[in-house]
Amino acid sequence: MARELDLAPTMPFTEQRALPTRELAPGVLSHLLHTERMTFSFVDLDRDATVPPHAHPHEQVTIVVDGDLELTVGGETRVMRPGEVAVIPSGVRHAARGATACRVLDVFQPVRDDYR
Amino acid sequence: MARELDLAPTMPFTEQRALPTRELAPGVLSHLLHTERMTFSFVDLDRDATVPPHAHPHEQVTIVVDGDLELTVGGETRVMRPGEVAVIPSGVRHAARGATACRVLDVFQPVRDDYR
Repeated sequence: MARELDLAPTMPFTEQRALPTRELAPGVLSHLLHTERMTFSFVDLDRDATVPPHAHPHEQVTIVVDGDLELTVGGETRVMRPGEVAVIPSGVRHAARGATACRVLDVFQPVRDDYR
Repeated sequence: MARELDLAPTMPFTEQRALPTRELAPGVLSHLLHTERMTFSFVDLDRDATVPPHAHPHEQVTIVVDGDLELTVGGETRVMRPGEVAVIPSGVRHAARGATACRVLDVFQPVRDDYR
């Protein structure tokens, strides 16, 4: 049923910019794709927009696409540049800030039902 | 144990170009990251390099980063451009070809143990 809502197997192709949006925090806009097993969050952050410290049971992988993202994972802070990747295991506290305006991809497993 | 091999929770940050490589097919070079639950394959395809038709139990999501990728999923063929996304459910036959030299991200769930 979820699959029908999100993307039918007979229509495998879509475009990031056509996906439904959700404001995750002020200045943090996501285009969201829920598949059967994962959630893909294509995020635009304004400069200095922040995602406050939080944790969730989902494994998260963050990939910087454009611009610079300041990411804190388990107490370690790094300014990530395009091509850099962070792995946030289940339950590990993390926070983010746009060091510049930036675009990132967050992948979650399992699906973020709270983002539907 | 797998986590220790790939990326310790105490070292959450890495860079795509620093990841181990694997030639998936002639002209198809992947930088691979295995997390606890997913595999991320950052792929460079030469123009006209092909991945023959195949299927696997893993769910796959393909995101085009640069250039054009011709992807066939379940009998439907599309030339995907940057920003386009394809969802390949478990068990669905698919194939790919570099319509131009291109860069794509393939995300698999669960981990592709056959790529370790």
